[in-house]
Amino acid sequence: MTNPDDQVFPDRTQRAPRPLVVVLVQPQLGENIGMAARAMANFGLSDLRLVAPRDGWPNEKARGAAAGADHVLDNAALHETVQSAVADCAFVWATTARARGQGKRVASPAEAMAEAAGADHRQAVLFGPERAGLSSDDVSLADAILTFPVDEALPSLNLAQAVLLTAYEWRRRARGDSAPFASPYEHQPASRGSIHSLFEHLEEELDASGYFLPENKRPIMVRNLRNILHRIGMSEQDARTLRGVFVALANGRRKRGGPR
Amino acid sequence: MTNPDDQVFPDRTQRAPRPLVVVLVQPQLGENIGMAARAMANFGLSDLRLVAPRDGWPNEKARGAAAGADHVLDNAALHETVQSAVADCAFVWATTARARGQGKRVASPAEAMAEAAGADHRQAVLFGPERAGLSSDDVSLADAILTFPVDEALPSLNLAQAVLLTAYEWRRRARGDSAPFASPYEHQPASRGSIHSLFEHLEEELDASGYFLPENKRPIMVRNLRNILHRIGMSEQDARTLRGVFVALANGRRKRGGPR
Repeated sequence: MTNPDDQVFPDRTQRAPRPLVVVLVQPQLGENIGMAARAMANFGLSDLRLVAPRDGWPNEKARGAAAGADHVLDNAALHETVQSAVADCAFVWATTARARGQGKRVASPAEAMAEAAGADHRQAVLFGPERAGLSSDDVSLADAILTFPVDEALPSLNLAQAVLLTAYEWRRRARGDSAPFASPYEHQPASRGSIHSLFEHLEEELDASGYFLPENKRPIMVRNLRNILHRIGMSEQDARTLRGVFVALANGRRKRGGPR
Repeated sequence: MTNPDDQVFPDRTQRAPRPLVVVLVQPQLGENIGMAARAMANFGLSDLRLVAPRDGWPNEKARGAAAGADHVLDNAALHETVQSAVADCAFVWATTARARGQGKRVASPAEAMAEAAGADHRQAVLFGPERAGLSSDDVSLADAILTFPVDEALPSLNLAQAVLLTAYEWRRRARGDSAPFASPYEHQPASRGSIHSLFEHLEEELDASGYFLPENKRPIMVRNLRNILHRIGMSEQDARTLRGVFVALANGRRKRGGPR
């Protein structure tokens, strides 16, 4: 088996990956439908299909829990059967928490979503009702099983959280794993000149204060200090801030009547 | 930057990875504390620390939402400050949804948890209050920022879901990504002898029914059929089932007085 972590959607400049279809089969609680919609929207999915939700549709509790994902609920398609919900899909994953003796391939969310994000056809994931999960009949309509790498002591995932992990992995494979904002830290490193000037300033102040004793230890003490400061990975602003700190410390010492 | 997906805890037979510490800073809703505890237990974490929860502690709503993760709540440590909550940790991640101008390294959950699961020291992750997230003061106590690869259109993750994604990635890096159960399918493939015998049976029946016409197309038609059937990846039981199906089809035809 190839390592799914090596597979990211290969060329995202050329075409967008096909969005994943999320099918909630006989969901019981409106809150969970809303939370699932929100989890989908968090990771850029919007094709939600509902098969015979217990409390009918639309559902006010779903609306209340969607928190900004109203467009997902507004466009959710209502179906009477799983067959109808996935009729236009070309590959179907069934999420289950245990082996079903159905002779199907079993994949982790990372493996399954690497396939889904790279596929040229539309793929769907089935999620079963909260209490019992997908029926064996539902599972028999799937091409493969998707299961979560949960702890044996508490393997039961909430419905919306199962949707969340699936959407998260789809996003990672389809769009990459990068943060929605860059680290400013990485973009404006201080020039080495500024850093060396800071070192020099500090070392002069410490010489004046009699810190580098005994004298024969001075070279190693200087190297240690430089190495500690280098680990900060300073920006220009950081270098200015530290210079100010060193000046203030030295001034305070002078004000208190220390050496120099 | 190295690819975090290449990093899995290197030698899990030798020593267990250190469990991650989860710190909820001023959480507002008991339900979210309970759901966070459940998410932790789903992925094998149990060290929960609460800094000044809004509604006090213990909290009945947290209990109700924990659904099997009571041991996490029972052992949750209550702290007055972030400093106290992470005093025994050697590395602290702050989860934030936006750049904070604090000059810190920014990592994805996959990157951060690859480091945490491989570390020899105790690492903590800070999660802020539901409404506003971590304060800038809280962020200034962290070594690095952890952020989620969310969609720009709905970047706000529910507190428990942020904990879930973090715990999920910790588990993947610490214990691997494998399913909690094996695919029976992969373990009992039919012998090639059984498969070839099934091919032979089917091809005989089809010869008798006059399916392979015109005769000069027979070789390619046979190859197509064999290739289709091979893609099933049959178990011995699958091969027996299909043989039964072919027999029934042929018998039905004979009963209806077809050729032969």
